[in-house]
Amino acid sequence: MRISEIGGEFALIRRITDKEFGDSAVIKGVGDDCAVIDHTKDRYLLVTTDMMVENDHFNLEWQSPFQVGMKLTEANVSDILAMGGTPKYAFVSLSLKKETEVDFVEALYRGLKTSAERHGVVILGGDTTHGSEYTLNMALLGEVDKSMLRLRSMAQPDDLICVTGTLGGSDAGLKLLRSGKPGSTSKHLEPRCRSENEARAIAEYAHAMIDVSDGLASEVSHICEESCLGAEVYYEKIPISESTIEAGRRLSIEPQDFALYGGEDFELVFTIPEANLGSLRKRFSDFTVVGKMLPEKQGIYLLKGKERLRMMRGYDHFA
Amino acid sequence: MRISEIGGEFALIRRITDKEFGDSAVIKGVGDDCAVIDHTKDRYLLVTTDMMVENDHFNLEWQSPFQVGMKLTEANVSDILAMGGTPKYAFVSLSLKKETEVDFVEALYRGLKTSAERHGVVILGGDTTHGSEYTLNMALLGEVDKSMLRLRSMAQPDDLICVTGTLGGSDAGLKLLRSGKPGSTSKHLEPRCRSENEARAIAEYAHAMIDVSDGLASEVSHICEESCLGAEVYYEKIPISESTIEAGRRLSIEPQDFALYGGEDFELVFTIPEANLGSLRKRFSDFTVVGKMLPEKQGIYLLKGKERLRMMRGYDHFA
Repeated sequence: MRISEIGGEFALIRRITDKEFGDSAVIKGVGDDCAVIDHTKDRYLLVTTDMMVENDHFNLEWQSPFQVGMKLTEANVSDILAMGGTPKYAFVSLSLKKETEVDFVEALYRGLKTSAERHGVVILGGDTTHGSEYTLNMALLGEVDKSMLRLRSMAQPDDLICVTGTLGGSDAGLKLLRSGKPGSTSKHLEPRCRSENEARAIAEYAHAMIDVSDGLASEVSHICEESCLGAEVYYEKIPISESTIEAGRRLSIEPQDFALYGGEDFELVFTIPEANLGSLRKRFSDFTVVGKMLPEKQGIYLLKGKERLRMMRGYDHFA
Repeated sequence: MRISEIGGEFALIRRITDKEFGDSAVIKGVGDDCAVIDHTKDRYLLVTTDMMVENDHFNLEWQSPFQVGMKLTEANVSDILAMGGTPKYAFVSLSLKKETEVDFVEALYRGLKTSAERHGVVILGGDTTHGSEYTLNMALLGEVDKSMLRLRSMAQPDDLICVTGTLGGSDAGLKLLRSGKPGSTSKHLEPRCRSENEARAIAEYAHAMIDVSDGLASEVSHICEESCLGAEVYYEKIPISESTIEAGRRLSIEPQDFALYGGEDFELVFTIPEANLGSLRKRFSDFTVVGKMLPEKQGIYLLKGKERLRMMRGYDHFA
């Protein structure tokens, strides 16, 4: 049976991974942006890992090795921030081609390091080997004050669902590049996750938090699943930039679809009690309310005009 | 310029990685089997990562996915043991092919977990994506009592160089498989690293320790480089099993060459003051003295009969 036949990537992960570990130091294993391990009296250790494969996560026809390196660091840092944490130590594995030029590897590493420095991360080690396509993996360690840990499972009924910045720009850029049409591609080529200060301000007032790796639809579904809740998302409220709207026009795609099903925006999705909105806005205001958490039995749906649509999932590597 | 032109894998790593990190918690970054991070009053955190690529580190024509999974865990655990540490938490990234069967992934995971359980390791998370060849990465966290940490840099002049078990079996098995000749291939297909108890017994009496990933020649050179010392290795003393000698006969290769330049035996190489040998033997005796550390100016060489040969390096992915 193929992976697509059992329901794709997330079904596979559920099938092969354990939920129980028999280790009291493990606060959270699979099922969030990071694993959470008891560490010191006041802090948890956070660990995340992300793998990027040539022609899937990046394409050297339009991305420079510097940009590829930056993207790998940003994607991992984003996972640590989504837990309310501080990113610290990175470990990079590279599978390079035999004929790879040293200049290429140096540019890739400059990208990794430029982004790492932006976030106070140090690259401490890794592994270098060779294959027939470029494959990169980063494992990133971070830590978080125990009181600041924000899990996908912490959403409460009636919490508002908010997203930072604008969504869909990365997927719109990718589709422009693939089609050869002109338009803004920087959100795909040079995605930037939020800063630690921004994420920590949100964590102070929010209940649940997750980053946008696979699209808003997928991230809201993850929060619902882990919190045993339902949700409604207001299609028209999803924040979309002018250049993403323009890309949608050129590609004949509704721009909200980039946001819902595209992914790799590395913005944050969080749920917050309405009473906390004002306090958060004083500290950080670059976010939009896009929905609301509901009791589980109400399901997960999208309000689009007068239609009430069942929420579809985001990007799946094996769909 | 290609990687092979600047001197291969290790030259590349030296070129792109930092030795200084401006972070007082980093005890050791690049240049040992694991990174070492200050953790609690009594213990360091250890982190290692290993990437395996299809048709380079494994070949599905003769290896089962279960065996591939086990090998990835054993290779990483071996790195933690070589620091004197306890392996704890693993994170696995998999790049699978789109057409991958669920049975294949489940067998791979059973292999990862069987070896993990053998060493008290729990697999806490990872990433799953797709590519045109199978690529696997494990990041493994462990810890070590501060007094038990054993670095490559800790060798002393006149220390004896010892290796556990026998060497060369993995490379001999691989070469038999490639040639289609009969013989023992289990050390290649199902390599097993040492146990934590064995490694800790060694750590109590040894100065420097490293595991055999790239061949004895490479590992002794790493100890010399990091300890600023020279070494002599006694060719005839290198422990070789009967089946590896037999493989050498069939392949017309001197069996010591498998041990020196082959790698992936996941045995331990350590340096120990002669005075400690007897005490260690009472706790653990499956090791052989194969050489001696010398002052740096004497160089690194191999004593073969009456010849004194300059030591060559082990396996290099970009040679």
